[in-house]
Amino acid sequence: MDVVVETIARAAPDVVAGLAECGVATVHEAQGRIGLLAAYMRPIYPGARVAGSAVTVSVAPADNWMIHVAVEQMKAGDIMVVAPTSPSDAGYFGDLLASSVKARGGVGLIIDAGVRDVRDLTEMQFPVWSKAIYAQGTVKNTLGSVNVPVVCANGLVNPGDVIVADDDGVCVVPRAQAEAVLKAAEAREANEGDKRAKLASGVLGLDMYKMRERLAAEGLKYV
Amino acid sequence: MDVVVETIARAAPDVVAGLAECGVATVHEAQGRIGLLAAYMRPIYPGARVAGSAVTVSVAPADNWMIHVAVEQMKAGDIMVVAPTSPSDAGYFGDLLASSVKARGGVGLIIDAGVRDVRDLTEMQFPVWSKAIYAQGTVKNTLGSVNVPVVCANGLVNPGDVIVADDDGVCVVPRAQAEAVLKAAEAREANEGDKRAKLASGVLGLDMYKMRERLAAEGLKYV
Amino acid sequence: MDVVVETIARAAPDVVAGLAECGVATVHEAQGRIGLLAAYMRPIYPGARVAGSAVTVSVAPADNWMIHVAVEQMKAGDIMVVAPTSPSDAGYFGDLLASSVKARGGVGLIIDAGVRDVRDLTEMQFPVWSKAIYAQGTVKNTLGSVNVPVVCANGLVNPGDVIVADDDGVCVVPRAQAEAVLKAAEAREANEGDKRAKLASGVLGLDMYKMRERLAAEGLKYV
Amino acid sequence: MDVVVETIARAAPDVVAGLAECGVATVHEAQGRIGLLAAYMRPIYPGARVAGSAVTVSVAPADNWMIHVAVEQMKAGDIMVVAPTSPSDAGYFGDLLASSVKARGGVGLIIDAGVRDVRDLTEMQFPVWSKAIYAQGTVKNTLGSVNVPVVCANGLVNPGDVIVADDDGVCVVPRAQAEAVLKAAEAREANEGDKRAKLASGVLGLDMYKMRERLAAEGLKYV
Amino acid sequence: MDVVVETIARAAPDVVAGLAECGVATVHEAQGRIGLLAAYMRPIYPGARVAGSAVTVSVAPADNWMIHVAVEQMKAGDIMVVAPTSPSDAGYFGDLLASSVKARGGVGLIIDAGVRDVRDLTEMQFPVWSKAIYAQGTVKNTLGSVNVPVVCANGLVNPGDVIVADDDGVCVVPRAQAEAVLKAAEAREANEGDKRAKLASGVLGLDMYKMRERLAAEGLKYV
Amino acid sequence: MDVVVETIARAAPDVVAGLAECGVATVHEAQGRIGLLAAYMRPIYPGARVAGSAVTVSVAPADNWMIHVAVEQMKAGDIMVVAPTSPSDAGYFGDLLASSVKARGGVGLIIDAGVRDVRDLTEMQFPVWSKAIYAQGTVKNTLGSVNVPVVCANGLVNPGDVIVADDDGVCVVPRAQAEAVLKAAEAREANEGDKRAKLASGVLGLDMYKMRERLAAEGLKYV
Repeated sequence: MDVVVETIARAAPDVVAGLAECGVATVHEAQGRIGLLAAYMRPIYPGARVAGSAVTVSVAPADNWMIHVAVEQMKAGDIMVVAPTSPSDAGYFGDLLASSVKARGGVGLIIDAGVRDVRDLTEMQFPVWSKAIYAQGTVKNTLGSVNVPVVCANGLVNPGDVIVADDDGVCVVPRAQAEAVLKAAEAREANEGDKRAKLASGVLGLDMYKMRERLAAEGLKYV
Repeated sequence: MDVVVETIARAAPDVVAGLAECGVATVHEAQGRIGLLAAYMRPIYPGARVAGSAVTVSVAPADNWMIHVAVEQMKAGDIMVVAPTSPSDAGYFGDLLASSVKARGGVGLIIDAGVRDVRDLTEMQFPVWSKAIYAQGTVKNTLGSVNVPVVCANGLVNPGDVIVADDDGVCVVPRAQAEAVLKAAEAREANEGDKRAKLASGVLGLDMYKMRERLAAEGLKYV
Repeated sequence: MDVVVETIARAAPDVVAGLAECGVATVHEAQGRIGLLAAYMRPIYPGARVAGSAVTVSVAPADNWMIHVAVEQMKAGDIMVVAPTSPSDAGYFGDLLASSVKARGGVGLIIDAGVRDVRDLTEMQFPVWSKAIYAQGTVKNTLGSVNVPVVCANGLVNPGDVIVADDDGVCVVPRAQAEAVLKAAEAREANEGDKRAKLASGVLGLDMYKMRERLAAEGLKYV
Repeated sequence: MDVVVETIARAAPDVVAGLAECGVATVHEAQGRIGLLAAYMRPIYPGARVAGSAVTVSVAPADNWMIHVAVEQMKAGDIMVVAPTSPSDAGYFGDLLASSVKARGGVGLIIDAGVRDVRDLTEMQFPVWSKAIYAQGTVKNTLGSVNVPVVCANGLVNPGDVIVADDDGVCVVPRAQAEAVLKAAEAREANEGDKRAKLASGVLGLDMYKMRERLAAEGLKYV
Repeated sequence: MDVVVETIARAAPDVVAGLAECGVATVHEAQGRIGLLAAYMRPIYPGARVAGSAVTVSVAPADNWMIHVAVEQMKAGDIMVVAPTSPSDAGYFGDLLASSVKARGGVGLIIDAGVRDVRDLTEMQFPVWSKAIYAQGTVKNTLGSVNVPVVCANGLVNPGDVIVADDDGVCVVPRAQAEAVLKAAEAREANEGDKRAKLASGVLGLDMYKMRERLAAEGLKYV
Repeated sequence: MDVVVETIARAAPDVVAGLAECGVATVHEAQGRIGLLAAYMRPIYPGARVAGSAVTVSVAPADNWMIHVAVEQMKAGDIMVVAPTSPSDAGYFGDLLASSVKARGGVGLIIDAGVRDVRDLTEMQFPVWSKAIYAQGTVKNTLGSVNVPVVCANGLVNPGDVIVADDDGVCVVPRAQAEAVLKAAEAREANEGDKRAKLASGVLGLDMYKMRERLAAEGLKYV
């Protein structure tokens, strides 16, 4: 029942890079306001913005054995996504594992649990989005699976899905839709630059979005 | 029932500036240890310290329509205070709205909900105190009100009240008491510089505050 | 029943310094994966790493009188550990008290409650690990005790125990075991440098830790 | 600054009784989906449904002195509403105070903090809605106020407002609007009995509320 | 993009009934300790134990329009599973909707949000497992989907999966595995009756499970 | 390092029985308002009130092996107190273990984690105070200790301490002080019956406790 799937499909690198460029808020809007992981998933340091293909790991509570197994399955540009089968804030991942992931070309970690050695991880500029920072060590006793679908922080992640993460949180883009989502996101981006300039110059959203008539129709009163 | 109040009274600019200078901890003590919003209201980046007159916004859950309406009511030196009628961590506010608020002279946002685009907001140095950082988008379907009394993060805010916010959180000063509170806060400040110097030089609080006698009277034993 | 114990034993300064050097994650592993305070204890700014001998303070809820008493008991290299008898997020400690602790040679604060003036504390580089940041003031009405055993953030702290704190949280090392734990931690550290280099060069943990056989024996399938 | 307001206006008893009959969900809808206290306010036993006029109490953290003062201000049909100035889960209220409130004709307690002796309170059928159940005792050291506006569990309560509470939570109806809200609530109730019967007989809401056309217009597809 | 899938496969009624009989703890163990929804999902009254086929509903935050649509898709023995696309504790569901679900033969509700009218629901013995009890009303403005895969309370639910729910929480059994899981669960049950009798008669688990040797081998010392 | 201490001292049975009679709120007041476990420790059903001698168990996260070991150490009148070394809500304990504890004469369980089979436990009237109700199963892989001091739900428990638990929560009475605390609690009880009668007859606490003068001295104004 516990398996490691060795071959997974990934999105094209330029699509992944394009999604990273757009960022979480734009990508999530572009795919119809869905795909965000829970708001408690926070970066360990500010300013990181990455995207990558998900190598998923289902782990037992407070047991990080399968993370070691998962490292071998990572390729350049991948992001590891770790979900325990029972909630735990233990620190499953630290600087040694990060060194190993980096050596494989991995670009980050998403973990619905705890992480530790965050000072070292920050110095290495290895970005992590986690539920907790906690030094509590883990054991290596119980099997789990690699590259199976997992639910992580209330979001479904299939292996090979594109993960986009920045200071706003984490968004999952299903691999098959990545290209279409990128197009929608880029259209949105282009559009936003123009809007931002207008708003910064003092044009009101009420006018730019032509909201006044609908507000009046709904019954809003100015007093 | 949904209204926009267009004319509100504000405290004098020098009073507002003075309160910003004093900071949250001092102002809150000066008005009798009241007026703080809930401790979960945290700044999106460290180091900001602002004060401003409250433009209040009552919004429907996960609906930011009224924020667009409220921008028009902001004047230089104002702070927007957003309270949903039902709890939601959705990201009601991002860099486009911040550009618009800045263009009106607004100096910050207090929101008992989520905010997004925090990397851009940090670059713009637009300070926000929020309950969550979350990319989740909102709709524009349901009316609310602007410049009515709101309860935000367990504190009552009337339009025109002075909001003081820094790394310690957010404090509300009723407009009518702003000048008196400033005086009390400044007196406290003056006092504190002196105390700080003494304590830094090694004088004990036990002696400076003359606590030893009362401690003994209460029965404290040294063993 | 409320007492101040004036004489406590402390660990040797070089042992304390050595534990600081190793950091929380390593020290906690070295003493058998125990001794961590709750994960909600977070530093007010990133990057601090300290160790010190615990001066413990048991305080009444929202009452910081005993903290003033405890300052007098601090010696160079001590860390104050504050535990309320009933949970409270009030801001028991600010920059004035920090000035006083610094003047005594104290090196930090661990408080299972709130702290305020965090901008000033950051400027002073006075490190604090707390449950909350909150400006709410406290009173000085009820006695408590200094240098008695306390339960702080779900951990037992005896006066004179060594506290190690960094970005990963807070760890308590019983005084009598401090030297042995340091030895175990240093052995672990030496070991880790070597492992890190191997992993960074691309050696897999699966091979370095010789896990493949045991994984197969447990039934892990590669598909 | 700390005051006891001895004379407050109350809503008519039959209006209060009518609102109790309607219950929280209906009343809150009838006044425009506002007025609920936070969802964490839960009854200590199931099945209670009461309404009463608010006697408000602002208390210091972990200090129940003002509750004793407030008891004297209660009249038959009143509900005590307690809000600490700083969050605390301490048990401010137990069976002795409940005996006293009952002797005055009081019908319940709303407290944004802890309560204790809940087995006795359940036997007495004295209903309480609280944030916590906690035995932690409190002191009697610091003044507060009675019958001033308070923010309780993120809701504004003015003395004399009607409090409606049942298994769904707690709703505040401003005194001046109590009669109008009752009418709207009763209209809603009448309406609901009819709807309930239709739905129970198998009529679909889609048809009863004539939703099909609008769903199609919005683009919902059946596949 | 918003769809209602009208035809879904369901597990055989006797399999569903058998799983209900076994209960959540046993079923979850029988399928390998996976499938539980988050621990915050609690029943609104004690003692209910049901199983049913999932009719899934993806709803917008604080908007219950799609629940009305979903009712029409329910058949006898179904359980409705509601997941908002953004977290909200609003009360999406009350006694009117429960009457309608009951009329269709539905046997319960699982909702990762709030529910209201819980006194009526308890009287009707309509079981609900929810994240919150909250009277806050919702709107009917935004489309969603029915009978698509949803993530609910950190668990993946496909339409037609078997939901088992009792006082211990909620467990999801994928439809295709329902029969096999039932067999494993029943084997476990049989086994448990025997164990329970032995333990109740005073036989120790240490002996019954033959643990003493392994404990000694691991190094446990009796002192 | 992992040990089972087989011989522990216990308080006299009549002292334990007396403390049960007094209940948590009274006992905690009688020993100086200390000794309560965290407010999140709640009974799985209402109405239970027990006291017993603590048999303590330190367990690894999501691993209940040591609970089986601890059962053998229980004697009539004991209460098991379980504390994981790292937080976990997993369901470490269910009806099989309860049957075994009951067979040894054990009277209850205090667990800073999850419990399951709560319907069965309720039918058996086996009282449990826990942090969570959760069906998640555990493993039996890692040693721990029995009858060593543990920190459980932010309280220190030594083996043989008296645990008092009821609807108000859980209180720990150090064994050596149990008799003195009982006397103080009984004195308090006697006293309370009298007070209750007076308050129920309409005497105000303000008069009974002679508070009016001190209130006036502190500056309380009636307006």
